[in-house]
Amino acid sequence: MPLRGKHLLSINDLTVEEVDLILRTASSFREISTRPIKKIPTLRGKSIINLFYEPSTRTRSSFEIAAKRLSADALNINVSHSSASKGESLIDTGRNLQSLNPDVIVIRHSSAGAPQLLAQHCQYASIINAGDGMHEHPTQALLDALTIVDHKKQLVGLRVAIIGDITHSRVARSNVLLLKKMGAEICVCGPPTLIPMEYEQYGVTVTHELREALEDSDVIMMLRVQRERQKEVAYPSVKEYFMLYGLNKEKMRWAKPNTIIMHPGPINQGVEIDPELAEGKHSVILQQVTNGVSIRMAVLYLLLAGNEETD
Amino acid sequence: MPLRGKHLLSINDLTVEEVDLILRTASSFREISTRPIKKIPTLRGKSIINLFYEPSTRTRSSFEIAAKRLSADALNINVSHSSASKGESLIDTGRNLQSLNPDVIVIRHSSAGAPQLLAQHCQYASIINAGDGMHEHPTQALLDALTIVDHKKQLVGLRVAIIGDITHSRVARSNVLLLKKMGAEICVCGPPTLIPMEYEQYGVTVTHELREALEDSDVIMMLRVQRERQKEVAYPSVKEYFMLYGLNKEKMRWAKPNTIIMHPGPINQGVEIDPELAEGKHSVILQQVTNGVSIRMAVLYLLLAGNEETD
Amino acid sequence: MPLRGKHLLSINDLTVEEVDLILRTASSFREISTRPIKKIPTLRGKSIINLFYEPSTRTRSSFEIAAKRLSADALNINVSHSSASKGESLIDTGRNLQSLNPDVIVIRHSSAGAPQLLAQHCQYASIINAGDGMHEHPTQALLDALTIVDHKKQLVGLRVAIIGDITHSRVARSNVLLLKKMGAEICVCGPPTLIPMEYEQYGVTVTHELREALEDSDVIMMLRVQRERQKEVAYPSVKEYFMLYGLNKEKMRWAKPNTIIMHPGPINQGVEIDPELAEGKHSVILQQVTNGVSIRMAVLYLLLAGNEETD
Repeated sequence: MPLRGKHLLSINDLTVEEVDLILRTASSFREISTRPIKKIPTLRGKSIINLFYEPSTRTRSSFEIAAKRLSADALNINVSHSSASKGESLIDTGRNLQSLNPDVIVIRHSSAGAPQLLAQHCQYASIINAGDGMHEHPTQALLDALTIVDHKKQLVGLRVAIIGDITHSRVARSNVLLLKKMGAEICVCGPPTLIPMEYEQYGVTVTHELREALEDSDVIMMLRVQRERQKEVAYPSVKEYFMLYGLNKEKMRWAKPNTIIMHPGPINQGVEIDPELAEGKHSVILQQVTNGVSIRMAVLYLLLAGNEETD
Repeated sequence: MPLRGKHLLSINDLTVEEVDLILRTASSFREISTRPIKKIPTLRGKSIINLFYEPSTRTRSSFEIAAKRLSADALNINVSHSSASKGESLIDTGRNLQSLNPDVIVIRHSSAGAPQLLAQHCQYASIINAGDGMHEHPTQALLDALTIVDHKKQLVGLRVAIIGDITHSRVARSNVLLLKKMGAEICVCGPPTLIPMEYEQYGVTVTHELREALEDSDVIMMLRVQRERQKEVAYPSVKEYFMLYGLNKEKMRWAKPNTIIMHPGPINQGVEIDPELAEGKHSVILQQVTNGVSIRMAVLYLLLAGNEETD
Repeated sequence: MPLRGKHLLSINDLTVEEVDLILRTASSFREISTRPIKKIPTLRGKSIINLFYEPSTRTRSSFEIAAKRLSADALNINVSHSSASKGESLIDTGRNLQSLNPDVIVIRHSSAGAPQLLAQHCQYASIINAGDGMHEHPTQALLDALTIVDHKKQLVGLRVAIIGDITHSRVARSNVLLLKKMGAEICVCGPPTLIPMEYEQYGVTVTHELREALEDSDVIMMLRVQRERQKEVAYPSVKEYFMLYGLNKEKMRWAKPNTIIMHPGPINQGVEIDPELAEGKHSVILQQVTNGVSIRMAVLYLLLAGNEETD
């Protein structure tokens, strides 16, 4: 039984063993994307629906390429220019999509909990959360974990600093849940206005001093400043934000020499990170993107292989 | 010779035998969508263009999935964000698309007659009308017929009530033409402002009393209130519309116990039908969606198999 | 070694022999699009990304169909409704896309030089310029050349008139570069406000008299009036433009009887050409569209077959 669950809605759905299985499977799929013929027939005849209520180039492309490299058929539905204008609810859309007999529905939605709601109303398809509001983005945390393991061998005992706008970041939450589960030590850092209270209960260290976060960290995870999600301005100015929490060469002197720098993209160049660093020797940002395809291939494969056995 | 015509523009294009053939073919294709490998190689190497001048999640998805389950290649063209902005006419677009050597062009357009016009200017490709203005939507009527036959065995002698905004509904017209052709008895019901004069000539009963329409009906077909197509308000208020023509549990007491309730979707919940009924035991609404894929597979297959022989 | 270069950014990238090779390869691919099964397995497992920063039905469709007829997987990214709204730069987008391991990125962009910039930052994927601002559109010139050769056997010594808005036309520039390279004689014709100085250095004849351009021409290439790219009005009125530079039956009397008329589309009917002529016996406009698929198949094939050998 590859995965216990039918869906991937939250990192909380996964056991330590399941995370390990996904990372190992992704690792083994990696070389497919570098072959001359980048395709295996494993999921031939499977239907994957990418249901995106928020625009997204990279996550949608990553899932679509993952599906195609496994020979599945991918159908893209961008709801902003379709039935949303006719006012159909998510539940109705979900029920209707399920009636098309898809095997997987990948959903991105601006509301936390939307994938959960969809899963409650779709008994047959597997639902994958590709980002729900400020809640979670589990495949991002999985691809981040794969990238860390690539460089640091294991997650247990590793020190990871997550820096920036924690409040508006589904990436931060999924990473904290996954990294804690796998035994890493986490420090979250950002302006007091951008770290929600709940993070202390997650068993992470909270600091507002960038230097404190950087010292002793094996991994620095910079977050995107989510200007589009902030309803109020949480800091005086971009310039001041960069001065206090932006990463540049000078501040990197506080970090260990073999630290890696991560970012979920897209980067606000010069807001949260100096472009020179984003492309420098510490950066593993593009490896994250490459690993995204492998992780999504692994998740699609394991969810569908799992369903097969119960058919 | 599977179908006499090259195109499917209107239900009027089809004989009784052809409707029967489409329904039987769709029935036989149905199980493909429930297999672990949902794909047969029948239309491999065929090019299907989905040319949508109106936004549509469900019809476009249904055609795209149908094409892929038959191994055809589907190309989506959403004209609202492409050459329409450069002011190209439908005829020019059609001629240009035909020069790409597609086998089928599926067209949805806000103007009645657009698919006919396209067919006149594309000698090689088969044209399928996926909804043209307030005129027709033949594959919707075919999937409705398949759903009725699933529950009622045959169409001859069946009593079907079509309720709501008849004037703005291409679904109503295609259904009336198909059901009359197949020997059903039809009653259309709605406010006087939403039933056009021409319907009397179709040989259907017209009533403005919901009770009269519901009594003795084997099938209740609720229509979507097409608020986006109504240029003027045709009834005092949504509340009043629902009171007179909306379907709820109380009014269902007027109907026979084994009546089925249909709706082409998307539903305006609480406007034309009580959500509880839409999901209740009489409802076959989601089966309509599932049958949509089978009907579109059958139509694509029969049109292209037909062309093959004349090649 | 099929092509020396990894990319197709400009006609300047190609030698005479390479242009000949592309035309011959396209010719040999042509019949695939008329088979009952329009597909060969040549590029199975290759990933083609269509990255369009400008809306385009025809060029995107042509590339997508070309990819599918060679069994490659095509991924469409329309940047206007995706990460452009999050403010990511072209270089960042390119680096991220490359991390998905595509074999080819086809790019259309409103800025001249964008494909060049992308190529500098993507070491692995082949970049194809599908139109960059007012600079170049090399596959258009290649499909035009194929169409001319279909009718006139060869390009050497042929007299080609390019008529209209030369300034704003990437089609004109790519055609001039290609036709000069292949030994044709070119006359460009248009209002003085719409012919840039640089064209004289290309070794072409410049005239503002339509009659002078039409007489003795073997090929008449009408350009689209790029109203969307003109920042100021370059001529008094559409009516006056048509009077002076629009092509109609009367003016065609100045041309040789076996002249062919070309247009890259979409046509502004009645602005640059009389609809009757666009559909008349001299017109090869729709053959250009058909040849577009063959040329794009050839370019994809030759770029990827070339990479294969260095793998």
